[in-house]
Amino acid sequence: MTRRQWLPALLLLLLASSCTSAQEEPAGNYVLVIHGGAGTITRNNMTADMEAAYTAALESSLKKGYAILQSGGSSLDAVEACIRMLEDDSLFNAGKGAVFTHDGSNELDASVMDGKTLAAGAVAGVRTVRNPITLARAVMEKSPHVMMAGRGAEQFAKEAGIEIVDTAYFRTEKSWKGLQRALQQDSLKALANPDTKFGTVGCVALDKQGNLAAGTSTGGMTNKKFGRIGDSPVIGAGTYANNNTVAVSGTGWGEFYIRNVVAYDLSALMEYKGLSVQEAGKTVIKKVGDLGGNGGLIALDKNGNMAMPFNTEGMYRGSATKDGRIGILIYKD
Amino acid sequence: MTRRQWLPALLLLLLASSCTSAQEEPAGNYVLVIHGGAGTITRNNMTADMEAAYTAALESSLKKGYAILQSGGSSLDAVEACIRMLEDDSLFNAGKGAVFTHDGSNELDASVMDGKTLAAGAVAGVRTVRNPITLARAVMEKSPHVMMAGRGAEQFAKEAGIEIVDTAYFRTEKSWKGLQRALQQDSLKALANPDTKFGTVGCVALDKQGNLAAGTSTGGMTNKKFGRIGDSPVIGAGTYANNNTVAVSGTGWGEFYIRNVVAYDLSALMEYKGLSVQEAGKTVIKKVGDLGGNGGLIALDKNGNMAMPFNTEGMYRGSATKDGRIGILIYKD
Repeated sequence: MTRRQWLPALLLLLLASSCTSAQEEPAGNYVLVIHGGAGTITRNNMTADMEAAYTAALESSLKKGYAILQSGGSSLDAVEACIRMLEDDSLFNAGKGAVFTHDGSNELDASVMDGKTLAAGAVAGVRTVRNPITLARAVMEKSPHVMMAGRGAEQFAKEAGIEIVDTAYFRTEKSWKGLQRALQQDSLKALANPDTKFGTVGCVALDKQGNLAAGTSTGGMTNKKFGRIGDSPVIGAGTYANNNTVAVSGTGWGEFYIRNVVAYDLSALMEYKGLSVQEAGKTVIKKVGDLGGNGGLIALDKNGNMAMPFNTEGMYRGSATKDGRIGILIYKD
Repeated sequence: MTRRQWLPALLLLLLASSCTSAQEEPAGNYVLVIHGGAGTITRNNMTADMEAAYTAALESSLKKGYAILQSGGSSLDAVEACIRMLEDDSLFNAGKGAVFTHDGSNELDASVMDGKTLAAGAVAGVRTVRNPITLARAVMEKSPHVMMAGRGAEQFAKEAGIEIVDTAYFRTEKSWKGLQRALQQDSLKALANPDTKFGTVGCVALDKQGNLAAGTSTGGMTNKKFGRIGDSPVIGAGTYANNNTVAVSGTGWGEFYIRNVVAYDLSALMEYKGLSVQEAGKTVIKKVGDLGGNGGLIALDKNGNMAMPFNTEGMYRGSATKDGRIGILIYKD
């Protein structure tokens, strides 16, 4: 081969390799996104103290998760750690501070999914488990099942060595007063009050190994009756993760999220229609709105691109990226 | 306009109208498909009497549903009526004849979805409701919720006037002996025995008005523990219906159906990738198999085309079409 012959071949080779790296993100990218619920969160109904408290709580959670990812930890570990912090914080409707059911109890739901293996775990209606997200992960890793509910799930928690607390642990005056207000309204009015509906926390993460994970945890709706289960513990509705596409955690009017299979629909729109995570996120939230529901979600694709769409007044949300930047937002504008 | 001028125009018009009718099925088509579970159902482990009994039960259910559709009734009514008959028949693992949990009780799950409105209802872990499919429909039509579980769901059943029975009603010797056998095995072996896993009944229907509906009902897995919930009451996993695409009811190893969001995935493959109901059905069952699970499903598209894929030895299944033909199959060949 003469110089004239191999020079174009070399150029073609270089071009081909640069095309490949342009399509794929450099390995080792890591990103974390969290939410603390969506609803009528406006500047008008927020004090400076409350805003500072929510911002500090979201920042602590993000820093915790970021440290795990930075040191090479798994996205699953980051998701669990972030959500545990939000569950332990009584500001959010998950774990301590969860809203009350009609009967005056706290019934907690959570789920988690591993994008690498499509393994998943979920619990619904547990009353004595301090960190439902940790129980959901134990269901995924230590049982042959995906979903457990009620007393049976609590029995499993005990056998798996998960921390059990007295039911009084979850009680906050804010949530108790919320129930008293709801009991005075009729149930339809209570349903129409988004503040009582959308308290949920969630996290999606991409780790250095390229693995996505998603988790969601909630106390559900204030004044909920009849063992109602929302979308948070329903894989495909409130939570979904798949290394080939995206990790998603939703926060919204659960019934609409279940009917629209929101989290998996976002993944399907990316996989089958080639939509970006932003386009797919916008589309599924629009579909929720078209059906009469509302809420938001966080989504993170396999390349670290994120989306945080919502059709409510606000959504507590934040992200941490590889460069160490932490961004926290609350309102629409 | 001369004769010469309007003749080609008329021909074009006729051609255009015939093209339209070639793409769309004539209005008023109606079809019904049911299943009674998938598993190791082979000629070797079936007696002539058992085969006749299953065939007769499936035929009765199909005739009941067909009569409803033929007289102009809704697909929802047909789905509920067909599943009620299968629930009342102790041959199937749903309603009477349901398998026993580890604790020696029967915990029933069911769900239903209306393809016209995307309304849905589901119940999990109910012990005293004779027809869980009817309760699932009541959740859909008489509550603001989609999913209810356990005692709360039973409380709702009472308030909604749904028939309550003593827990002893569900007991059959066959199911009780099944539990005793399972208790003697270790739990992993029990999980590996497909006969104990896949008892589920389901129905999908298209009515004369062009509305699709889907429903699923089950007693779950023999020896199930910890309040385990399978795919049957999970909208998107075991049940899905959408007038724009397809109605689906699954029967398989529930954990894999949840992780793969099987029922909605079938719909998404049709809507976003343009697959036929047969291609989409084959694809989602292959995905279940690729992950290590097994089972089957029934699917019916908006034009009345059906698919009944499965990767087990057999699946109790049958269909009734507008021309009055009833087809029932059990084995793979």
